[in-house]
Amino acid sequence: MTTLTGMNFIAGSPSARGASTFTSVNPRNKQAGGVAFTNATADEIHRAVISAAEAFEQTRHYPASRLADFLERVADEINGLGDELLQTADMETALGLPRLTGERGRTTGQLQAFARLLREGSYVEAIIDTALPDRQPAPRPDIRRMLFPIGPVAVFSASNFPFAFAVCGGDTASAWAAGCPVIVKAHPGHPATSELFAIAVNRAVEASDFPKGWFSLVQGNTIEVGQMLVQHPRLAAVGFTGSLRGGRALFDSAARRETPIPVYAEMGSINPSVILPGAIEARAESLAEGLVASATLGSGQFCTNPGLVLLLQNDQSAAFIHTVKDKMAARPVGVLLNAAIESGLEHVVAQTQSREAVHTLTGGIVPESESYCYANTVLQTTGAAFISDSLLQTEHFGPVTLFVVCQSEEELLRCVFALHGNLTATIHAENHEQALAATIYGGLREKAGRLIWNGFPTGVEVVHAQQHGGPYPATTAPATTSVGLTAIKRFLRPVAFQNMPDGLLPQALQNANPLGIWRTVNNELTRERISL
Amino acid sequence: MTTLTGMNFIAGSPSARGASTFTSVNPRNKQAGGVAFTNATADEIHRAVISAAEAFEQTRHYPASRLADFLERVADEINGLGDELLQTADMETALGLPRLTGERGRTTGQLQAFARLLREGSYVEAIIDTALPDRQPAPRPDIRRMLFPIGPVAVFSASNFPFAFAVCGGDTASAWAAGCPVIVKAHPGHPATSELFAIAVNRAVEASDFPKGWFSLVQGNTIEVGQMLVQHPRLAAVGFTGSLRGGRALFDSAARRETPIPVYAEMGSINPSVILPGAIEARAESLAEGLVASATLGSGQFCTNPGLVLLLQNDQSAAFIHTVKDKMAARPVGVLLNAAIESGLEHVVAQTQSREAVHTLTGGIVPESESYCYANTVLQTTGAAFISDSLLQTEHFGPVTLFVVCQSEEELLRCVFALHGNLTATIHAENHEQALAATIYGGLREKAGRLIWNGFPTGVEVVHAQQHGGPYPATTAPATTSVGLTAIKRFLRPVAFQNMPDGLLPQALQNANPLGIWRTVNNELTRERISL
Repeated sequence: MTTLTGMNFIAGSPSARGASTFTSVNPRNKQAGGVAFTNATADEIHRAVISAAEAFEQTRHYPASRLADFLERVADEINGLGDELLQTADMETALGLPRLTGERGRTTGQLQAFARLLREGSYVEAIIDTALPDRQPAPRPDIRRMLFPIGPVAVFSASNFPFAFAVCGGDTASAWAAGCPVIVKAHPGHPATSELFAIAVNRAVEASDFPKGWFSLVQGNTIEVGQMLVQHPRLAAVGFTGSLRGGRALFDSAARRETPIPVYAEMGSINPSVILPGAIEARAESLAEGLVASATLGSGQFCTNPGLVLLLQNDQSAAFIHTVKDKMAARPVGVLLNAAIESGLEHVVAQTQSREAVHTLTGGIVPESESYCYANTVLQTTGAAFISDSLLQTEHFGPVTLFVVCQSEEELLRCVFALHGNLTATIHAENHEQALAATIYGGLREKAGRLIWNGFPTGVEVVHAQQHGGPYPATTAPATTSVGLTAIKRFLRPVAFQNMPDGLLPQALQNANPLGIWRTVNNELTRERISL
Repeated sequence: MTTLTGMNFIAGSPSARGASTFTSVNPRNKQAGGVAFTNATADEIHRAVISAAEAFEQTRHYPASRLADFLERVADEINGLGDELLQTADMETALGLPRLTGERGRTTGQLQAFARLLREGSYVEAIIDTALPDRQPAPRPDIRRMLFPIGPVAVFSASNFPFAFAVCGGDTASAWAAGCPVIVKAHPGHPATSELFAIAVNRAVEASDFPKGWFSLVQGNTIEVGQMLVQHPRLAAVGFTGSLRGGRALFDSAARRETPIPVYAEMGSINPSVILPGAIEARAESLAEGLVASATLGSGQFCTNPGLVLLLQNDQSAAFIHTVKDKMAARPVGVLLNAAIESGLEHVVAQTQSREAVHTLTGGIVPESESYCYANTVLQTTGAAFISDSLLQTEHFGPVTLFVVCQSEEELLRCVFALHGNLTATIHAENHEQALAATIYGGLREKAGRLIWNGFPTGVEVVHAQQHGGPYPATTAPATTSVGLTAIKRFLRPVAFQNMPDGLLPQALQNANPLGIWRTVNNELTRERISL
């Protein structure tokens, strides 16, 4: 077993100069862990960012292949942590070993996927317009443009994905892939897990001979740690996964800086699902089973949890809701990640329940338990209420689903138009309902980053085409994604070169195309060399 | 001659409900124009944005070819305005007919270039990962992703490019190309020119049978008009070209919204040029001539004006600076666009002159004149002063160049590291100086959006590869450009489709690839259809 220090890791070195500490808590029995973790100080955060800025002076010139080697090495080092990683994370999150084993595979898989993207190399978006020396009235210069890394990135870990959205999660992987050093603010819910990851990363940094400032880990259970990090003048961007309140606070802080920086915050989402009558008629039982499984997966603590279901009023819908209610009530109550999630959920569900038009079909309480938990909950309201009361779009982060029963297709469409931004939106329908589905998707397209047909929103594939984002309040940057390979674009910035001698150009833009990448040359995509 | 109304154009209809008016002013003689332009009211701005949002419900489904037709029609209608457009703009800006004729060609040219981009079609960045139905432990779904327009865009015109960065300039062209309706806030310096453009656009909207809300023009010489526009809840994004103060105010306003929106503001830049000794030795005279021509082009009122020149101390540098000073002094004093630019320039140059280490070699005054103007000005300071005093990086928007004389290559590099963000950065050097140039470019790459070799930064080619942007304070969005074809990306947002039936997919993502565009299919770029 690794002996944990409880310290921050500033540019490879353990550091704990602060006086205030915290521990992790086992959500299953609310018992504190044995290691005291020390809140990072202003000085430690300053050293972390300065070291990252110094590291960037080197790493911004690294070829993509070297970054790829590093990412693969990190994946290997994570696997090298073995079962201890799974057990530590399970103790801190109660997510269970099967889920955590899968999440580890996803985490190493996305590091390896970015490595492949880097080796292929075309992600730099090389665009070349060659000179027109004879153009009148003046010659046209040669202009060549590609993407470069933006600088040190702060990544704020999420509580609900201790691997895939945490120290070595998608934000970190994509920032590293871009060539940016990363300072991770560990989530206070799983500091021991975070320290294990830091150990793995530091091994990879050393083995790869990267500068030590390439990675730092700061611990903290206070708002101040995060704010100091975001306010540091040498920071270039922020990645965040968490609550709307937390993400918006960082966004506001970054916008107030003398030099504002982008905050890529993935925040709240209720992930509307529309279930059309044909789907209920054809397969009510399997639909209900799938919905309940998705809504209670990880105790409902997914940003893609199906928290809202829109359907049309009729007897079959009523029976369907009844079935879902029974299945939710029959499922064992899951463990929640921490006290804040339990109390937050209790608060927002109570707020929703306080609306006259909302009926609680099951749950809506914190059961007696030695664990953090919340009863599997089904609420119901009307389309009219949903349209008129935007509070009914509050995210209930946990195993809670709100049914909205609409009087007509027209009312259902008005509900869709009233939706705030979401990560996903789903339609369940039969093939003969595609015309209506097309109309509804027309509305949903403006409200979500991913549209799903006859599926459930939990489970986000890490593929090139993935879009895990969406209009505010789902994210602060709807034009970007935090999952999938285009996530790298968040940490890149274009630079154009005018009339630059070939020898002064980066390889990606040289005439010979030594990297063999796809480039847009005089408006044509090609992998050919340029003959002038 | 067209009879101008002085009204706003809200969704195609003239409207002037406000009580407060203003006129344009001829910068050559400070005489007010004959037409009173009415500041847009809150109600007019509201109607403009609501109409745009309604128009978007239709236009977001338009095929790219239809948008392309529209852009080409606008170009034709602009040409159809004939000499009256040039004469009106010259009266309002004093930029001169030759320059304005060239700028008109650039403006229509970029509308046509976006039309070609749309017809080619690959700009939607289609990425497709097909399903793996046999994957264990669970099948992988089919995920397909492409870009869609984001919604109504507000464009704030610049004073210094009444065509190319104004009503139908690059921001508008790229937003329209993306499929977004545009509300233009006309610059109060050229309201008559703006009304002529609005007439041309309205003709194109009508001829193309686009919804009238696709375009509105609001006039205004107050901060309130712009702020009301940016605060409107249905607005999706803002494009701006102008001062740091103006751009930052809009950025701050947009960041404070309940739903924040992106502000793509292109603001101040001093465009550093480094001149290495070999270049001065080889061609001092032509370098001086080129620099002075660039610094005084358009009376220095270019965002890419070469306002800062870094060089090494020696006799040849001293002689070069002397030559530049003489040439600047000998050039006729140009006319400035308006009173605000004259007084602003007087203020910031005086502020720079107040620093002990700054010497005024020529100019530095407002000459007696019936026109708005400022003397062609050359200032000089030391590398040490530049490094220690960030106020010396204040933009002087006009015909003003500050020489920074460095004691050593090391000091010159420290000046480069001290630079704030800029649109461009240039090195003048001989081929035997490429090694030193490479080191300096290494630093400049972090400070600018476009790096130039042996050229002058004024003159921004509208080509696919162009990058007209840069780190703050050059822009609020360094990952984007406001010139060149990738400017369209600012107004697009990705959406992914999961397991969607082919018939419900947009054409760009359908198996048959009916648009024949380039797509990334299972990590390979291809124009082939997908056979499943």
